[in-house]
Amino acid sequence: MATHRPVSCGLDFCAAPNLNNCLHQATTNKFDFVCVPLVHPNFKREFFSGNAKERPGPFTRSDMLLCSSDWNNLVIGKLSPYFNPDSKIPMLMKNSETALNQELSLAAHLGVPAITFKLKGNIQKHMNLARIIYDKIMTTCIFQVWVQVPMENPAKQAYTYRDDEEHSLESPWEWWNSFRTVCDFERKIGVALIVSHDLPESEEIDRWLGEPVKCLIFPTTLFISNKRGYPVLSRAHQTLIKKFCSHDIQFILTGANRHQNISNYHSYLDYLWKSCQINGPVEKFARGYEDYLQCPLQPLMDNLESQTYEIFEKDPVKYTEYQRAIHMAIVDKSKKLRKTEPIVIMLVGAGRGPLVRASLNAADHAHKNVKVYAVEKNPNAVITLQALVKEMWSNRVTVVSCDMRNWEAPEKADILVSELLGSFGDNELSPECLDGVQKFLKDDGVSIPSSYTSYISPVQSSKLYNEVKQCKEKDKHAIAHFETPYVVHLQNKYDIAAPQSLFSFHHPNKDIVIDNTRYAVKKFTVRQNSVLHGFSGYFDAVLYDTVKLSIEPNSHSTGMFSWFPIFFPIKEPVQLKTGDEIEIHFWRRCSTKNVWYEWCLSKPICGSVHNPNGRSSTIGL
Amino acid sequence: MATHRPVSCGLDFCAAPNLNNCLHQATTNKFDFVCVPLVHPNFKREFFSGNAKERPGPFTRSDMLLCSSDWNNLVIGKLSPYFNPDSKIPMLMKNSETALNQELSLAAHLGVPAITFKLKGNIQKHMNLARIIYDKIMTTCIFQVWVQVPMENPAKQAYTYRDDEEHSLESPWEWWNSFRTVCDFERKIGVALIVSHDLPESEEIDRWLGEPVKCLIFPTTLFISNKRGYPVLSRAHQTLIKKFCSHDIQFILTGANRHQNISNYHSYLDYLWKSCQINGPVEKFARGYEDYLQCPLQPLMDNLESQTYEIFEKDPVKYTEYQRAIHMAIVDKSKKLRKTEPIVIMLVGAGRGPLVRASLNAADHAHKNVKVYAVEKNPNAVITLQALVKEMWSNRVTVVSCDMRNWEAPEKADILVSELLGSFGDNELSPECLDGVQKFLKDDGVSIPSSYTSYISPVQSSKLYNEVKQCKEKDKHAIAHFETPYVVHLQNKYDIAAPQSLFSFHHPNKDIVIDNTRYAVKKFTVRQNSVLHGFSGYFDAVLYDTVKLSIEPNSHSTGMFSWFPIFFPIKEPVQLKTGDEIEIHFWRRCSTKNVWYEWCLSKPICGSVHNPNGRSSTIGL
Repeated sequence: MATHRPVSCGLDFCAAPNLNNCLHQATTNKFDFVCVPLVHPNFKREFFSGNAKERPGPFTRSDMLLCSSDWNNLVIGKLSPYFNPDSKIPMLMKNSETALNQELSLAAHLGVPAITFKLKGNIQKHMNLARIIYDKIMTTCIFQVWVQVPMENPAKQAYTYRDDEEHSLESPWEWWNSFRTVCDFERKIGVALIVSHDLPESEEIDRWLGEPVKCLIFPTTLFISNKRGYPVLSRAHQTLIKKFCSHDIQFILTGANRHQNISNYHSYLDYLWKSCQINGPVEKFARGYEDYLQCPLQPLMDNLESQTYEIFEKDPVKYTEYQRAIHMAIVDKSKKLRKTEPIVIMLVGAGRGPLVRASLNAADHAHKNVKVYAVEKNPNAVITLQALVKEMWSNRVTVVSCDMRNWEAPEKADILVSELLGSFGDNELSPECLDGVQKFLKDDGVSIPSSYTSYISPVQSSKLYNEVKQCKEKDKHAIAHFETPYVVHLQNKYDIAAPQSLFSFHHPNKDIVIDNTRYAVKKFTVRQNSVLHGFSGYFDAVLYDTVKLSIEPNSHSTGMFSWFPIFFPIKEPVQLKTGDEIEIHFWRRCSTKNVWYEWCLSKPICGSVHNPNGRSSTIGL
Repeated sequence: MATHRPVSCGLDFCAAPNLNNCLHQATTNKFDFVCVPLVHPNFKREFFSGNAKERPGPFTRSDMLLCSSDWNNLVIGKLSPYFNPDSKIPMLMKNSETALNQELSLAAHLGVPAITFKLKGNIQKHMNLARIIYDKIMTTCIFQVWVQVPMENPAKQAYTYRDDEEHSLESPWEWWNSFRTVCDFERKIGVALIVSHDLPESEEIDRWLGEPVKCLIFPTTLFISNKRGYPVLSRAHQTLIKKFCSHDIQFILTGANRHQNISNYHSYLDYLWKSCQINGPVEKFARGYEDYLQCPLQPLMDNLESQTYEIFEKDPVKYTEYQRAIHMAIVDKSKKLRKTEPIVIMLVGAGRGPLVRASLNAADHAHKNVKVYAVEKNPNAVITLQALVKEMWSNRVTVVSCDMRNWEAPEKADILVSELLGSFGDNELSPECLDGVQKFLKDDGVSIPSSYTSYISPVQSSKLYNEVKQCKEKDKHAIAHFETPYVVHLQNKYDIAAPQSLFSFHHPNKDIVIDNTRYAVKKFTVRQNSVLHGFSGYFDAVLYDTVKLSIEPNSHSTGMFSWFPIFFPIKEPVQLKTGDEIEIHFWRRCSTKNVWYEWCLSKPICGSVHNPNGRSSTIGL
């Protein structure tokens, strides 16, 4: 695992009369790539009339200037800025369209990794451009499209002293949003965000975190000189970079060199980038899993592998907290029991024994006598448990190789300990399992965990939307992939609103008729125009008394990495307006064989029920 | 072909203590089916607590009362009205849900063709109900669901004298719209429209024409007595029935008998229904094709069959108009030519000769000498032409067995006649074909048709949306069926706004660079809340001077049946509000091999480009 990712920063040229010179200048100054016009403006052509139509000679430099691998890695191609395929003048429109297609073909021929151009307004100004770009990249082109979007509306400067009018100015995010919607959220199309001198409000910047930002463009005018004359960025701009530090982005420097050496800019950006990389246990553990969709584990149906046990046993927080909880429970229990009597602890789903260890440690710490039953259904993990009993736990631990739901316990327990929680709390069927074994718990027995609650919050993430779209499987229902929850280390996302609690479960459950179905409606208020792609899910759990575990962002147990969040997609992105209310209905449903979730949006627009009858995703009992 | 479709009218019973008696009463009075509660209210049960949970005995009548085919054909089951699975009281919610599931299971067991229940408000009141119904019918149930919706908001009566507040009352259409959206426009779910005493405005009634209305429910209180004491409906209600006359709907009579004999209601409704059936040439021709999707013909790529020629040659209008146009052209031409010189007419795409006949008739009528070339690429149709020449056209007609685009004409024509138009005008590639042959037209030659224009208008139609959804093909792009235009005899639809002209073509085309690509943007204003499912397309053509053909609804050539409209779907239904602007972009695009359309919505919300690069549908050159 790499500890510090180096920056990747390109140098922009407004013109490149000699491409090799540009490349030389960039690389000797440590830059990683260049950004140059595909065609010199002198080669501007007309196609539909006039002399230029017949103009002889090539319209740009030869591809022989560079070898293929340099074209593929070092050059970002800029489209000519004068194109206007949305002109109302038919001749201009036609010429733009033909010239644009010619440059796009050229870019594909050269094999540049990306082309780039600047958005100047809403889709009303760019519909035909969007259609042409989309058409082109849907066919043979393999390059990415980096759409340059200014962070602030360029018209804003004119209004600096007129705050009242400023608010009616459209954010350039809207330009991007309509452009990529027309292009059906195509994953090859990303954002090159032009960083502005005055930054927009924090919330508005955060919205970009849910977009496929490929690149931040820094004009040299943003840099100030430090005491030693080197170019540095303001604190606000440093914070901006920090926000993107967990994203896979690159930089581009643009504009005239205003300091001694242009390499100083690169050094500074590299320094900033490295210094804002976080390297805690969670980050180390999660590296490489950013925004990667996983199907939730089904430990009840499938047996976990050795490697999976090993990874989760390493969590630096979870078992410490379990041990604390068990310790408190033992102390409380021992106040009520006769001294000689051992406290009976049942571990249901003992795995390879981490909770056995925690229980014995807790008992030792409390100087109490305990009798531990370690129940485990995975015969492979049972081997490990039996070896441990033989080696060190001898007569304190009884290993039971059995599905906890079929077990006939020889006595009743004081403390029932389990770790059956999934990213969404109940989604690995902890409620059903614990209901099944609570008959072996004494009337005043306690369950660790004693309760858990799931949380949801609305999320914008083009990245996740596209990842889900890719998950289409041939044999399944056409939209099955949009009706499946995924476990995912969410990074490239914007939280539209704070999480709210959804379903809670308490153990032991003393209801006359136990009913683990749930139905709840949650409402969220939209803080700014955005796009809803789905709901992120979290949980927190009370292990015992004040001892808690949480992956809910506002109370996340520091350093704990055992659970990534869960993500519930929706079939179609929903455009949201500031002040809109999001209303989402969630059901937890149960049959004799399965448990599953259904969800349905009712505001700001009605959606359809996702996953009816669990047709696309269920959790097997 | 049946000339008059008989009415299908059921009789509603608020209770059915003896089902056989009810059926007997209905059938002896000529009614076609009955509508009865599935369960008697006395059997109301509780499931989660209390004594009723354990109540012994059956909860409704036995299925042995009727034979299966009677259950299948004669009984519509009404759900118990007291269910409220959306109650805020958990016990009521649970009991409702369980009882509802029990009745739905019973309905499936009995095999009734449909169940029905009444909507009482918006989805906020019915979300859980909608989810349960949807879940159920997505599994094994084969019955339809007839959702009863009142035509006017029942709260309206309280506001009769307060016009200002009336406008804020939600139309029950909104209730239906949100309900079926949650159920993903499932085709098994239809509307049973409860006809109100005061009818809503005409536009609001028309909106129901775009919904899957299965049934109109007439309370007996709507009927008035005529002079002879028989029950009749007001003129407004008669008009309502007339609006639905081309739809496949049934009636239900509900309420106490207020006239001598309940069979009189049936007789009257039957009389009304029959009398409003239209039986013109178009209706006769189109019967059975209502809302049936056809892929547009590709006569350029495929050869038409004998039967297809036969059908279209029967059009009572088209060839008369062609003959009129050719006659006018001959008369005009002959003014400029020497008397002895024959007028050269080229028929490109002569088929089995209807235009040859029209040309010769026109010449005879004008007493002019003509020389006709009949060019036809289908070798099978050429046989017919050659036989006709031998029989009767002898030396006036030269048959050319050749693709018009490859033909080398021996002389230039005065009049070029073609019938290459599709439902959308240019969609059978008339422009490309005529551009190819116009080199054989004299400088002052004319083309019949001389121009044509396509039209589009926004359409609401659940029916078409569902038909398109069914067209999914395994080997094609996942949404290919939503990126394909269909030829369809549109019936079950609501026109959201009037058609507007889109693309025009003129012949001969004297432009220096001939360009048959097109791009246009059209705006429509939404008159009332509705749902956009796609765009219907039409065309009109100027054959010559004042002689026109049109399938554009406002100028449709009376009695002409050769063309059904075309329909361009959109991927997802879009909810519209009164006053919204619909903005749609349409492109006609051309390659060397194909022509295709792309389309993209930009208002009220942005959609994505449909059919980029013709990935889902093209017309082969």
